[in-house]
Amino acid sequence: MSSELWFTEYNKNKNFGMTFKVRQYLFHEKTKYQTIDIFDTFEYGKVLVLDGMVMLTEKDEFVYHEMLVHVPINSILNHGKEPKRILVIGGGDGGAVKEIIKYPFIEQIDLCEIDEKVVEYSLKYLNPISSSLEDEKVKIIIEDGREFIKKCNKNTYDVVCVDSTEPNNISLFDIEFYKNISKILNQNGVVTVQVGSYVFHKNLLEEINKIFKSVFSINKLYSANVSSYPSGVWYFAYGSNSVGAIISSEFVKTKELYYNGEIHNASFVLPTYIKEILK
Amino acid sequence: MSSELWFTEYNKNKNFGMTFKVRQYLFHEKTKYQTIDIFDTFEYGKVLVLDGMVMLTEKDEFVYHEMLVHVPINSILNHGKEPKRILVIGGGDGGAVKEIIKYPFIEQIDLCEIDEKVVEYSLKYLNPISSSLEDEKVKIIIEDGREFIKKCNKNTYDVVCVDSTEPNNISLFDIEFYKNISKILNQNGVVTVQVGSYVFHKNLLEEINKIFKSVFSINKLYSANVSSYPSGVWYFAYGSNSVGAIISSEFVKTKELYYNGEIHNASFVLPTYIKEILK
Repeated sequence: MSSELWFTEYNKNKNFGMTFKVRQYLFHEKTKYQTIDIFDTFEYGKVLVLDGMVMLTEKDEFVYHEMLVHVPINSILNHGKEPKRILVIGGGDGGAVKEIIKYPFIEQIDLCEIDEKVVEYSLKYLNPISSSLEDEKVKIIIEDGREFIKKCNKNTYDVVCVDSTEPNNISLFDIEFYKNISKILNQNGVVTVQVGSYVFHKNLLEEINKIFKSVFSINKLYSANVSSYPSGVWYFAYGSNSVGAIISSEFVKTKELYYNGEIHNASFVLPTYIKEILK
Repeated sequence: MSSELWFTEYNKNKNFGMTFKVRQYLFHEKTKYQTIDIFDTFEYGKVLVLDGMVMLTEKDEFVYHEMLVHVPINSILNHGKEPKRILVIGGGDGGAVKEIIKYPFIEQIDLCEIDEKVVEYSLKYLNPISSSLEDEKVKIIIEDGREFIKKCNKNTYDVVCVDSTEPNNISLFDIEFYKNISKILNQNGVVTVQVGSYVFHKNLLEEINKIFKSVFSINKLYSANVSSYPSGVWYFAYGSNSVGAIISSEFVKTKELYYNGEIHNASFVLPTYIKEILK
């Protein structure tokens, strides 16, 4: 009988976990900011793990990245505008950029990642997910996103996607941060942010919902089915001061593996128990 | 350091699992048909496990049972009829009956469960989920569902809910079975069946989709977010020969913890990669 290697991601209370059988342990490093692990798993392919939490898997990263990116871009298209400049905060693995780059009208993608090692090792181990990071439209800024946005000019970006490391880190989720994002967004701008699972990050969902209500006149939550994340359902927050989240889905030209015009609108429909709490 | 007890449900390939920390191991029995375990877990409360697979948890059984039951009933109401007689195949834990019993116009609920031990131990350990099984409208038949439906008269039921043990057991999912269900359904009848996760039971989804296409003129798949089931997203099949699945959601009077009129319609919207395969 040969030995078996398993990686388990536990919830905060350490009483539930998702466990992946590992084919090969590719890489481990403790950087200035976090631990980075990359495993090759039998069921989900390569998996990027930061501080013990699954950030992406080859098998289903498309769901998460498509929904973070195509929802704001298509909302702006539906509003009659073409987004040109996009900021990704976090996202050093390149998955979000891979989706953004699909739109030829997008001229500039700034990616502000705090940990240069995430970019370095994603380029080395996570091709082709990461390969768009080398596109000439992409500018990589290695800096704390909170500091970077303070220095940006007003009305710089059409879309800001907050693809932060992990939702237990409350630091990216304070009201100051989103007020600054609101400033650097254009008039017809949209911000989206990954928030977490309702089952395991209920307080965070409630907190971000309050912040978005106070900062953005249009504020919504939407969800996607990311089976490798705890609970399998991941929530995102949508904020804008002019661009509606619900679109004429029949005019959506984009058809991705997960995302389509109908999914766009359906993803904003919430189960009663979540809707009530977020009122 | 004290010892810890964990229960893990693995996928078929035994390379991915969901693991629950157990507060108390309540019960184990090997019956004529399967093994039954009931655990009290820290995160999900009491958990019923049949043949190693989670059937329900106290924390989120409502999602699964609401979506199995309220979708067909509200589709028929939207169609202008009131369902009176309902058959549940499987469902010995009583969770589906608990939802059906909420509608005062329903006159008779027949529950056909193969394993009397599931009923017995659910009544003993899983109150109040199971307590509706003792309602006077409910008739419990201990028999193999496949045999039972062969003996039923034509046009007996308005709704049939197939709440079978587990989707790896192909036996409940053959075309003969659904042809017989089609016969015992009224003109304005609907059948729903739990199918499984797209990630882990892809072939089953494709198979049931083919069967429903050949047996029911109206055939759809819909989904719900059941976080304690593998992948977190569970699919159901909907079949009818006259009752449409998409409803006027604004007229839905029922508002459950998960189910509401908007969720009803949104649950039928499929991600592109699933839609394409099921064409």
